[in-house]
Parts: sequence; structure tokens; C-alpha cells
Amino acid sequence: MARDPLPTAPTACCTPPAGSALGPHDAERTARTLKALADPTRLRLLSIIAAHDGGEACVCDLVDPVGLSQPTVSHHLKVLTEAGFVTREKRGVWAYYTLVPDAVDGLLTHLGHLLAARPSTSP
Amino acid sequence: MARDPLPTAPTACCTPPAGSALGPHDAERTARTLKALADPTRLRLLSIIAAHDGGEACVCDLVDPVGLSQPTVSHHLKVLTEAGFVTREKRGVWAYYTLVPDAVDGLLTHLGHLLAARPSTSP
Repeated sequence: MARDPLPTAPTACCTPPAGSALGPHDAERTARTLKALADPTRLRLLSIIAAHDGGEACVCDLVDPVGLSQPTVSHHLKVLTEAGFVTREKRGVWAYYTLVPDAVDGLLTHLGHLLAARPSTSP
Repeated sequence: MARDPLPTAPTACCTPPAGSALGPHDAERTARTLKALADPTRLRLLSIIAAHDGGEACVCDLVDPVGLSQPTVSHHLKVLTEAGFVTREKRGVWAYYTLVPDAVDGLLTHLGHLLAARPSTSP
């Protein structure tokens, strides 16, 4: 059903958004970061790393708890590293992963601001 | 390279996790919720709804800003509704979507606790 374009007569349904909404570029970037997090294995790996002393864990401590092969765990850790949630440092034969608190906090703060409902102005 | 199972001799690399890590069931549930959010169109829709007065928007106000067809927008809104981020109410010919602040806050708080790095206990 076509609707007549009547610029002088707003339809009863429509009110303009009052706050600021997310632009396409920021939406793409934020969705990409969230996708890195939106996986059960990666969430478990991050929480295991976070639970270690100083938020740092050896890859040798990450394979057994998630019950997957070392290559699969390494793939997930690469995704997390590329998304900036952890940093990787090689020491001797092992790689160590450290949580980047600013990356987690930054994402959560950004989402918190973005998705805070604007208060109603009606009485 | 196979490693000998030596229960009495921990390898030099390995320290047990000190905090509590995420279990498989919670990880699946949290990842599912995050996946609903990890899409640029859905993030934009949520932010547009949040930016409207009272965190409520008519579907008629959501189609144009994201530049997609009404069926595509409806699909994304269904995903957000099923994930609990918005509620849907039909009034007359239009559906209205309202942000559920507790759903957003609950997810962000859960992630914040989960991914808070345990302080280092070494001097």
C-alpha cells in the first residue's frame, strides 16, 4: 500500500528521534568488536584469563579448561588479540595472554551510553 | 609433541586460575545474547529506539533511518525482541518498540564482572 508523501502533514504515528543515534561507521566498528566477544569459547577464554593472577594466563593453562584442541584455542585467542581484548607475549616456549581492561571497559561504557533510554518528556 | 601426565609435578609454566571463570552453560547463554547485539543494523535500531522520547519508537520511524526494507527491519527487530532488548506493542496499524533498560544493563554488568581482571598478588 503506497502512502502519499505529504510534507506538511506528519502522520499521527511519527515522532522524530530526540537523542543522538549511532552512525553507520560506528555501528560497523562496534558490531565487529562485539562479534569477537559473541562466542562461548572466547568468552570462557577471556574469563579464565581475567580470573588468573594479574589478568594474565599462559596458553598452556587455557587449552584444558575449554576442552578444545590447541590450534582451535589459538584461533580464538588470535581473534581476541586482533579485537584488542588481550595482548600476547611469547616467553620461552609459551605464549602468555593478558587482558586489556581498557578495551573491555571502553566497549561496555560505549554500549551503556548508546543504549541508555532517553527519559520520557511527557507528564 | 605429547606431554607426560605428571600429577605430582606441575610444569613451570602453569599456575591455577585464582578467580571464578565462566561455565559452559552461562557462556552459551551470554554469547547468544551478544550475537543478537553484534550486528550493525540492530545496534543502530536499538540506538534509534533509545534516542526516542521514553526509549520508545514506532516501527514507522525505524525503516527510513537505517535505509533497509520494512521486512528486513522487522526481522532485526524480531531478533532484538526475542533476545529481550526491546518489547513490542501493537497500537492501531503500527507496532511500537520499547527499550528494556534492565536487559542492556544486566548484560553490561554481567560482562563487567566476568571480564574484570584479578589484581596481581605478586609484589
